[in-house]
Amino acid sequence: MISVLLVGNGNVATHLHKAFLTADNIAVAQINSRKLEDIPQADIAIIAVSDDAIAEVSSKMNTYLVVHTSGACGIDELQNSKRKGVFYMLQTFSKDKEVDFSEVPFCLEAENNDDYKILEKLAKSIGKKVYQIDSKQRKALHVSAVFVNNFTNHLYKIGNDICKEHNVPFEILQPLIQETALKIESLSPEKAQTGPAIRNDKKTIKNHLDLLDKKQQKIYQILTKSIQNGN
Amino acid sequence: MISVLLVGNGNVATHLHKAFLTADNIAVAQINSRKLEDIPQADIAIIAVSDDAIAEVSSKMNTYLVVHTSGACGIDELQNSKRKGVFYMLQTFSKDKEVDFSEVPFCLEAENNDDYKILEKLAKSIGKKVYQIDSKQRKALHVSAVFVNNFTNHLYKIGNDICKEHNVPFEILQPLIQETALKIESLSPEKAQTGPAIRNDKKTIKNHLDLLDKKQQKIYQILTKSIQNGN
Repeated sequence: MISVLLVGNGNVATHLHKAFLTADNIAVAQINSRKLEDIPQADIAIIAVSDDAIAEVSSKMNTYLVVHTSGACGIDELQNSKRKGVFYMLQTFSKDKEVDFSEVPFCLEAENNDDYKILEKLAKSIGKKVYQIDSKQRKALHVSAVFVNNFTNHLYKIGNDICKEHNVPFEILQPLIQETALKIESLSPEKAQTGPAIRNDKKTIKNHLDLLDKKQQKIYQILTKSIQNGN
Repeated sequence: MISVLLVGNGNVATHLHKAFLTADNIAVAQINSRKLEDIPQADIAIIAVSDDAIAEVSSKMNTYLVVHTSGACGIDELQNSKRKGVFYMLQTFSKDKEVDFSEVPFCLEAENNDDYKILEKLAKSIGKKVYQIDSKQRKALHVSAVFVNNFTNHLYKIGNDICKEHNVPFEILQPLIQETALKIESLSPEKAQTGPAIRNDKKTIKNHLDLLDKKQQKIYQILTKSIQNGN
């Protein structure tokens, strides 16, 4: 039996709490990070708070092992006096959407192998995909995630804006969006690249630029150039 | 019964041919666009050739209705003497991958309602999602598709590059990529936006920029700025 104390009341803490409640051999409690006067005993504290609050909240934690859930912060952000680790799940958590933890990659880090084994056991009690990732690798993952998630979503938004402006239903593009995302599970993104940029189809590129506003043109041009330069 | 002549031997022509063979009330033949001496009779010719070849190939067609399959070309690109139309499928077609036509959006255009009805019947013989889209709308769709497909794939490539450089398996990011694509089926891209740019999290943005090379930094900065300006 591992006893887990979840600190925080955001989406990550709430979804984790729900999942651990159904797991075998895990006892879980959840507390608000602003009410740390009377902290329950536990083997591990999982601090799922905003990045800025990790240092302060962790300094008040007294469990054997304290981990945070942030992709952006190193393990040294933790200020507790005992052992430290990271329990980072690379997925977006929405308030109203069920999380399928069997699909969530758990990126784990600990200061020694025994602690890593505990985190691994914890992750495998609710999930399947477990990776040992150190703070430097996690930082790279976090930046990559901004490109493939935040920036990709912004490209969807620009596509949506163009559609709206020309009275075209955006839903027409949704099968293509899904196909584009699925394609890279069997093909590297480099090999999956298609379109006027990689073909250097100047006529189509010019036609496209004519239809865009100045800000869209700038993004179109820089991404076209980047595709053509192979980086 | 509608008789269809498919002109071309690329992915689009080949996949369409296969689909029409199994459809009810469709008779289909496929010919190479370089062998137009002895053209079989048909009600409709579907010209699935490269954009540059549409004008020349269509000028040799003598069927009642001639359509092309290009997202980038207007209906006027066709040079046949009789009726014209467009039969554009907004999807990527790969040589070795089966196409599920029930998921493919058919964007149809014709010069009059009778011809449109024929194209609609043809599309519905193999598919489900049919949209009436004129040449101007199709052009906007085509540009949007570059953003949500070609440019998005390039962001996947940059994410892959960052992972490779830091010895992180790219597969860790795949569930997030799928989730990002699925999310906009229930939420507008504008509402789905997350990440350091929209939060104006300057510390994380600085940390990310420190990890990137010059070309990646330029793309990171322009997309961050675009997210923050709401366009």
